[in-house]
Amino acid sequence: MSVDATLISAFEDALGTGHVFHEAADLETYAEDGRGTRGEPALVVRPGSADEVRAALAIAYAAGLRVVPQGARTGLVAAGLAETEGQDLVLSLERLKGSIAIDPVNRSARVGAGVLLSELNAAAAEHGLFFPIDLGADPSIGGMVAANTGGARLLRYGDVRQNLMGLELVTAEADPRHLVLGSELWKNNAALALQDLVAGSSGALGVVTAATLALSPRPANTVTALLALPEPETALAILTRMEDAFGTLLTAFEGISRPALSAALAHVSSLRDPFAGAIPGYCVLLELSGGRAVPAEWLEEKLAETLEPLFEDGTIADTRIDRSTALWAVRHAVPEGLRKSGRVVACDIAMKRGDVMRFRGEIAQTLAQIAPQLELHDFGHIGDGGLHCNCVWPDNAGPYDAKVAEAAREAIFRTVVEDYRGSFSAEHGVGPANSAWYQRFTPSDVRDLSGRIQALMAPMPLGRVNFG
Amino acid sequence: MSVDATLISAFEDALGTGHVFHEAADLETYAEDGRGTRGEPALVVRPGSADEVRAALAIAYAAGLRVVPQGARTGLVAAGLAETEGQDLVLSLERLKGSIAIDPVNRSARVGAGVLLSELNAAAAEHGLFFPIDLGADPSIGGMVAANTGGARLLRYGDVRQNLMGLELVTAEADPRHLVLGSELWKNNAALALQDLVAGSSGALGVVTAATLALSPRPANTVTALLALPEPETALAILTRMEDAFGTLLTAFEGISRPALSAALAHVSSLRDPFAGAIPGYCVLLELSGGRAVPAEWLEEKLAETLEPLFEDGTIADTRIDRSTALWAVRHAVPEGLRKSGRVVACDIAMKRGDVMRFRGEIAQTLAQIAPQLELHDFGHIGDGGLHCNCVWPDNAGPYDAKVAEAAREAIFRTVVEDYRGSFSAEHGVGPANSAWYQRFTPSDVRDLSGRIQALMAPMPLGRVNFG
Repeated sequence: MSVDATLISAFEDALGTGHVFHEAADLETYAEDGRGTRGEPALVVRPGSADEVRAALAIAYAAGLRVVPQGARTGLVAAGLAETEGQDLVLSLERLKGSIAIDPVNRSARVGAGVLLSELNAAAAEHGLFFPIDLGADPSIGGMVAANTGGARLLRYGDVRQNLMGLELVTAEADPRHLVLGSELWKNNAALALQDLVAGSSGALGVVTAATLALSPRPANTVTALLALPEPETALAILTRMEDAFGTLLTAFEGISRPALSAALAHVSSLRDPFAGAIPGYCVLLELSGGRAVPAEWLEEKLAETLEPLFEDGTIADTRIDRSTALWAVRHAVPEGLRKSGRVVACDIAMKRGDVMRFRGEIAQTLAQIAPQLELHDFGHIGDGGLHCNCVWPDNAGPYDAKVAEAAREAIFRTVVEDYRGSFSAEHGVGPANSAWYQRFTPSDVRDLSGRIQALMAPMPLGRVNFG
Repeated sequence: MSVDATLISAFEDALGTGHVFHEAADLETYAEDGRGTRGEPALVVRPGSADEVRAALAIAYAAGLRVVPQGARTGLVAAGLAETEGQDLVLSLERLKGSIAIDPVNRSARVGAGVLLSELNAAAAEHGLFFPIDLGADPSIGGMVAANTGGARLLRYGDVRQNLMGLELVTAEADPRHLVLGSELWKNNAALALQDLVAGSSGALGVVTAATLALSPRPANTVTALLALPEPETALAILTRMEDAFGTLLTAFEGISRPALSAALAHVSSLRDPFAGAIPGYCVLLELSGGRAVPAEWLEEKLAETLEPLFEDGTIADTRIDRSTALWAVRHAVPEGLRKSGRVVACDIAMKRGDVMRFRGEIAQTLAQIAPQLELHDFGHIGDGGLHCNCVWPDNAGPYDAKVAEAAREAIFRTVVEDYRGSFSAEHGVGPANSAWYQRFTPSDVRDLSGRIQALMAPMPLGRVNFG
């Protein structure tokens, strides 16, 4: 059914005239995501409550429109964008805010799906707490649930699902229901964990309207170290040594390849070069953090003691230890450095931790053969086996050839999934950008069951992913 | 269909004659669980592989037999027991062992569903690792997945689901399928998290044949403290102060009521009384633990510093600090102490952390009115809001009256669920012992959806719980 005046009126009657957009200028705001990918919605609606979500879904169901829930458009797999044919209804979560209700003793927060991560953290900080999913972007909570985002501190705090106590969900059917799943409890085994199934479902099992999240004590003291390694292969032995020494005090363990660090330092002018021009073969950024009784000086001293033998045997060539966010700034500058170096081919993959360095070596050889124009600029969360296996087509390498780039992507995904039993989507979720890989690499019997659950939970077209 | 010679032969052909039991003496081994509850299976089969599980389920499906998967019979809600009518087939996981495959760099273990927690931990210990779900019992991994067990260190490490990387599951249908769900990855968002839905599903969504679990570094240094509190109400302020001071170094925070401690000391002869007869109004047992670089002396010193002001203002009357397992022995002796004090009415509940002390006070008043014979002997994991709200009918209180006990249980569950938005099952899962509470307290639309998912995943009768 086309979007006509009658349909627009129906939505306006349910949501108010200010919250139904169909003019091109208004739609533009909702057209583009964090990767710069574009979609063309037929219509955008902004419900302000779960009841309005129910009403919007009922109207869309009757009209045969597909609904695509959309958060803050920071996603990287296009799961929150309309298709390009101008047929989809985008349901924006941005007005589903309400108050952020923090329970400081319980260490939990109930938030509307449209609340931004930064807003939640500002409210939690007043109680010495934070939501420990550490990301470069500022997504909505609903989007974070849909993508089950991970980030740089997953090693210690887990992903969104592992910090999810409860969800409110509106089902996508003729008569949509407002389900309250889970609770605000740390420990609860009184029902099937439907909320955990919704986490990571790319908006395809229902519209998340609110979530109750577990918060963590914000560490009072943090120390970071940037280690210069002559040989990348030693990074994993350093990781297990740090875990043995520091246990739960180790809160991040990131890897930065030499080309990735070079790109950041060359193109992000605000950065200070930590190694004054001597760019190492590989860098590890690690973070230790603790509470008020764990002084930063003590962390520094213990870290220096633990690293000492690694200096002596040449495993580490140089190090910078810091209590500020300066070293994190280097790490966080990498994506911008890559973008400014040329065209980026991004692959968000994961594998067993012990495989990361072997994979890097193997894929570098493969890419040299099949895509010699591409330069491997990998970096990422090697402490959890996550690798942003990103390549750059430099501006001076001649015109970008999409076929070569696609061959590179194909080699990366095929190798990590088939040869390493790894994942083609570590922390960005499943969306149109990687649905074909989902279809290809997911066993047919798992797809069959997933598709049947999707059809049962969302009998009307919802979201951009078919899990079947 | 009755169990006749033809059916027995069919199972024997599929599994071997030594693994199909139908004589009363053989069935007896599989009849009783951790609470002493009994079931009467018609038949017990012990498949030794996923293929044999498939074969057994196919035969049972054709014969119209309900299958009840059973682990190590340590469960407390009867989810792994046959009904008493002698109609069910018990499918024991005990031969699904295989080798325990530990990946020390990845910190993961792939284990068969019949492997015991103690066996996994013995294998993990060789690599300085452990599976951090801390329990009094020694369940099978399959049973732990079915119940999504929590335990005393959930505060730090989470429940089974939060440490579950992947599962192998045989579906319960005419032609059962062997599904591989999830992976051995710390970070993975490439599919719906069906494995997380199976965790906590009481064996009703399929038969778990193997699991891949996340392991943690085994802390090299541990300090425990037993705090004597004149006023129980102060326990929660101590909890948040400890979290602020120690962050992730705090690995357990348990509460023990005065009657519970008295019972343990009176009836468990191996215990030494930590307070030499001066039993406090309430006790907190807390644990700090860290890696090799975090010395026990340092933990002790920082703990003493942090507790000092609480001594000075009278919040804490006395304390014992210890590096051995002696204080944990006191805590772990409580269930035995209760059993030896009389008949136990056990309620495994959870609520928001800040509500625990208010709830204790309120329920004590209620019980005094409706069940004056019962003595409240609560203890549990107050750091995660979990409370074993157990009562004892003392041997000297006259004959046990099941109606009075049931009224007490009803008051406890109704109050925690309806007045505190808490849970009637914190960490023991759902089984026949609490299915009626599930039906009563779960919203009908959530039950409806759960029942439809159950019917889709397990179209043949499987397990003892109907989630619909």
